[in-house]
Amino acid sequence: MLTEQNNERLVRTGPGTPMGELFRRYWIPALLAEELPGPDCDPVRVQLLGEKLVAIKDTQGRIGLLDEFCSHRTASLFFGRNEECGLRCAYHGWKYDVEGNCVDMPSEPEGSTFAEKIKQTAYPGVELGGVIWTYMGPKGTEPPLPELEWAVLPERHRFVSKRWQESNYLQAMEGGIDSSHVSFAHRFNIDDDPMHAGTEGLTYLKADTRPKFEVAESDGGLVIGARRTVDEDNYYWRITQWIMPWYTIIPPFGTHNPLGGHAWVPIDDENCWAWSINYHPARPLTDSELDSMRRGEGIHVKYLPGTYRPLASKDNDYLIDRVAQREKRTFSGVEGISMQDASLQESMGAICDRTKERLGTSDAAIILARRRLLAALDARTDGELPPGADPGDQRVRSTSVILPKAVAFQEGARDALVSAPGENFVSI
Amino acid sequence: MLTEQNNERLVRTGPGTPMGELFRRYWIPALLAEELPGPDCDPVRVQLLGEKLVAIKDTQGRIGLLDEFCSHRTASLFFGRNEECGLRCAYHGWKYDVEGNCVDMPSEPEGSTFAEKIKQTAYPGVELGGVIWTYMGPKGTEPPLPELEWAVLPERHRFVSKRWQESNYLQAMEGGIDSSHVSFAHRFNIDDDPMHAGTEGLTYLKADTRPKFEVAESDGGLVIGARRTVDEDNYYWRITQWIMPWYTIIPPFGTHNPLGGHAWVPIDDENCWAWSINYHPARPLTDSELDSMRRGEGIHVKYLPGTYRPLASKDNDYLIDRVAQREKRTFSGVEGISMQDASLQESMGAICDRTKERLGTSDAAIILARRRLLAALDARTDGELPPGADPGDQRVRSTSVILPKAVAFQEGARDALVSAPGENFVSI
Amino acid sequence: MLTEQNNERLVRTGPGTPMGELFRRYWIPALLAEELPGPDCDPVRVQLLGEKLVAIKDTQGRIGLLDEFCSHRTASLFFGRNEECGLRCAYHGWKYDVEGNCVDMPSEPEGSTFAEKIKQTAYPGVELGGVIWTYMGPKGTEPPLPELEWAVLPERHRFVSKRWQESNYLQAMEGGIDSSHVSFAHRFNIDDDPMHAGTEGLTYLKADTRPKFEVAESDGGLVIGARRTVDEDNYYWRITQWIMPWYTIIPPFGTHNPLGGHAWVPIDDENCWAWSINYHPARPLTDSELDSMRRGEGIHVKYLPGTYRPLASKDNDYLIDRVAQREKRTFSGVEGISMQDASLQESMGAICDRTKERLGTSDAAIILARRRLLAALDARTDGELPPGADPGDQRVRSTSVILPKAVAFQEGARDALVSAPGENFVSI
Repeated sequence: MLTEQNNERLVRTGPGTPMGELFRRYWIPALLAEELPGPDCDPVRVQLLGEKLVAIKDTQGRIGLLDEFCSHRTASLFFGRNEECGLRCAYHGWKYDVEGNCVDMPSEPEGSTFAEKIKQTAYPGVELGGVIWTYMGPKGTEPPLPELEWAVLPERHRFVSKRWQESNYLQAMEGGIDSSHVSFAHRFNIDDDPMHAGTEGLTYLKADTRPKFEVAESDGGLVIGARRTVDEDNYYWRITQWIMPWYTIIPPFGTHNPLGGHAWVPIDDENCWAWSINYHPARPLTDSELDSMRRGEGIHVKYLPGTYRPLASKDNDYLIDRVAQREKRTFSGVEGISMQDASLQESMGAICDRTKERLGTSDAAIILARRRLLAALDARTDGELPPGADPGDQRVRSTSVILPKAVAFQEGARDALVSAPGENFVSI
Repeated sequence: MLTEQNNERLVRTGPGTPMGELFRRYWIPALLAEELPGPDCDPVRVQLLGEKLVAIKDTQGRIGLLDEFCSHRTASLFFGRNEECGLRCAYHGWKYDVEGNCVDMPSEPEGSTFAEKIKQTAYPGVELGGVIWTYMGPKGTEPPLPELEWAVLPERHRFVSKRWQESNYLQAMEGGIDSSHVSFAHRFNIDDDPMHAGTEGLTYLKADTRPKFEVAESDGGLVIGARRTVDEDNYYWRITQWIMPWYTIIPPFGTHNPLGGHAWVPIDDENCWAWSINYHPARPLTDSELDSMRRGEGIHVKYLPGTYRPLASKDNDYLIDRVAQREKRTFSGVEGISMQDASLQESMGAICDRTKERLGTSDAAIILARRRLLAALDARTDGELPPGADPGDQRVRSTSVILPKAVAFQEGARDALVSAPGENFVSI
Repeated sequence: MLTEQNNERLVRTGPGTPMGELFRRYWIPALLAEELPGPDCDPVRVQLLGEKLVAIKDTQGRIGLLDEFCSHRTASLFFGRNEECGLRCAYHGWKYDVEGNCVDMPSEPEGSTFAEKIKQTAYPGVELGGVIWTYMGPKGTEPPLPELEWAVLPERHRFVSKRWQESNYLQAMEGGIDSSHVSFAHRFNIDDDPMHAGTEGLTYLKADTRPKFEVAESDGGLVIGARRTVDEDNYYWRITQWIMPWYTIIPPFGTHNPLGGHAWVPIDDENCWAWSINYHPARPLTDSELDSMRRGEGIHVKYLPGTYRPLASKDNDYLIDRVAQREKRTFSGVEGISMQDASLQESMGAICDRTKERLGTSDAAIILARRRLLAALDARTDGELPPGADPGDQRVRSTSVILPKAVAFQEGARDALVSAPGENFVSI
């Protein structure tokens, strides 16, 4: 349960809001690389943290995200012409380069210096790990580029998708932090996921639906351990990483399966992008794995054609199938891990009213994550990177291991919790 | 014409509003019995007086209406599993019985007593007369169950339907109180209704479109007499009952036809359920009558498949047929008695602005009904039932009779104005 | 760039707003004549300056625009019966004539004088030039009827269409005043327009995309000259008329082509009617010209069937065709001159935020037009017609001419800038 004031501080991310200002100090996943396929391709509308932008890749392959609305008369640059190294407004022909400089103003007399006074808001775009990232903070304050494990692997080791979620980012992200719901919302799906099949971990997971949770702060977020009893002497631990401000890594099953991860990025305060990533540190994904992911299986979804919006949505009650629910093929009747989460999270309303919650011990990780986000607001100093922004904070991995009861999970799993692109991981 | 303040007092029915608190002291028609067909059936979303609820029938056939949003993290219980005597949230498995007790909390450690502290808001559900009724006031203040004539008859004597109306309940209910509009909005439909055909009353009704109105207070509402001249010595009276807070009974034509009735129940302040009931006190409805009602004839409507929303709606201009209007097959071009009313009432806007009205003598019943509702707000005392809540107030019937001019209609029709389930009625 | 306060003064046109009161002192294009095809035809909903109205043509061919909502109980008169010389409300039968008098009140007792106290708001309707005009100001303050050239020509000399635009009227009208955008938004369309083909003017237009602008006040608006260099001694002038409050005339190409004009009329503050007119002062339009206009070519549009809403709209990204954009068949990828304008103007948001603009020298006409509108607010005196309301102010024409550099365009083109219905015009 939160006060209304703290809930507001956590969920509002527009320009000038405290959380909005904090988030503007991180690199932000903005588009899939496939959305800007080549030089001079079509401009793409992008909304992030409440700001409406249009992204272009210019003739030289440079990427920029410009304020969507032309400085001149506020017409949308979406209708613009992506021409020789710049985006030209379709209304009066003003042309901007990827840095927002007005490089041509053909509506004004020759010799006019008016263009020099015009600066369209522009954010840089960097392609890395199948994603185009942007930085919306003050120039010169950019952290080094992300080194999340999935982002630095060779392309074939990774599959990235995104889907529109009709809710605030926080209630979406809380689903990624909250390991407890897996035993319920996804109970009858755990077998289906290509990442789970036939592993020893799965046996322990299904045997005990009441894990105990231990949560510790990491440099850049939280390490969340969920332990289940294996036998008199040992625990089975599933350990989730939360990397600030919005990344989560799903603990794997076995060593042969790909890992999973998410990013939860505000579009505006009532919508977010749910990014879903599968990756394997030590090998390329197989064609069969990629096919399944492209079909929207596992943590990915089926789309409305031509969009990144899920086919199952609030408007169609997520295509709920009460027979499947009754026959225990799905727990809620909604198909697919991601839409099971999304349906419940969106059902809370666009912005969850956290003054009405009643939190239990299984919500410990959520409570701590909120606390760390609020603390980061108070701790902001201009010279320093906020937690999770330093690549060192991002070189982590989730894991699942068996440890003797006496051993603290952070100690026992220390090596398995560090990312090591190229090397296989230990997991059961 | 009303002051803005009094209009607000009449139309606002959410939690904490004066009218909302008054309405919470009555049994409320909540669902058709068919919507909860059997034990452990699918949960159903219900909104009443601005509160979002989910209704279930449990394994033992008990009915409960729970706050839609789980006490834990506010996910919708609509996605829940209706399991062995309780509804289990699909997010973390918290389970509630029909009284809102948290009877299982599998996400918390064994031995936890947290569940005992959780109480989901829950309202009782009682099946009676083809309807599931609920009571949303404080426990222990429930009046006896309704004894409206249509509700206490054997099932085969009655047909009940409901339709969504996109307006405040009051402007819908005013149509039920206002006998004057029948001569206009429904002028060319009066013959069509299976309840009217070939009766003596119909002859008088069509002969005189300017009835005089007399209105008297009954114990639980109003008795509204509309008189037309038959000859030098006699009046033809059509007498409508309004039972507080939202029931109206249509005066019948002849004794062989079923009676009609309505309930006008707020969903929220901009939408209401219009319940329509046909019933015969002395005989089962015939197959032919039931077929016609199921097809949406008379006071019933045709639906958008899979919903209780009318096919004809604001979005399609109620399928207005100007040729039918011109050829006097319908008065406004809209088909069906209920949609003729709904189209006009919805056209006033979601909430009618009664500061702009100009009321005449034919609006006397509406004026008095508003006055009684406002008076009931002021008169509320905690120990007492509000008017219309006592079953004694509900044992009334509408009628149509011929009386000598000198006789007051309440006196002359005294016996015909009392309900008598099982006995036939007097009407012409 | 405007202050927020001045922007508000310019864009708000509802009852009681300064601009709304000014606009109510002009004749307003309300409907196409075809919308009220004959006596006792169907009533038509019309919204103007934020007021919801219903238009009828009565049995004698008189036209009235009545407040949509019945004085009695606020039901919509759209469902009314257009009967013998009056519109009868479908709820209780109150009947109004075209002047808003309640001429029948059948729900009240015979002999009642209540009807005499009822006055439904009503505005006159006058058919002229293919358009039904109304006047929404105080009775007795009407200016003489419009004498815009296109309105006073014989019917066959003119084609009039209208389309719904999802934006405030001002940003739409600014497109009509702003000659500068033609060289960009419509660059690859200029050849296509039936009004441009093979003219000398077109050659000069395409040769110089940086015209210089000179703007002068006329009696009723502005005369806007855009000059391009022809040779050492001469300029090519394209001269646009703006007639207050919302008319613009497109300068013609050659003398054999029809002229074009627009009216930009507020529906409410977030929507407007864009009227488009082609006309030839000296000859009937040819069948081929009319066919092309009816198909939605030139400045006209293709409609959603059964509506005056364009097929290409915000909801479908104006059917943008990026290949056509890339291949320079259209500048923005949107087809059609009007939808090129509408797409850009609507993209500014329903009401353009003019505090964010950066205006250049090419925006001189827009700046002056806003100034004149604001000045007219301050200058309003009750006895006088506002600028543009006097027919003398409306007898103007746009033109394109070649003039020696030393000659001021208003002097050199003096005769060509005066309308002369029936006589051909000078233009190159």
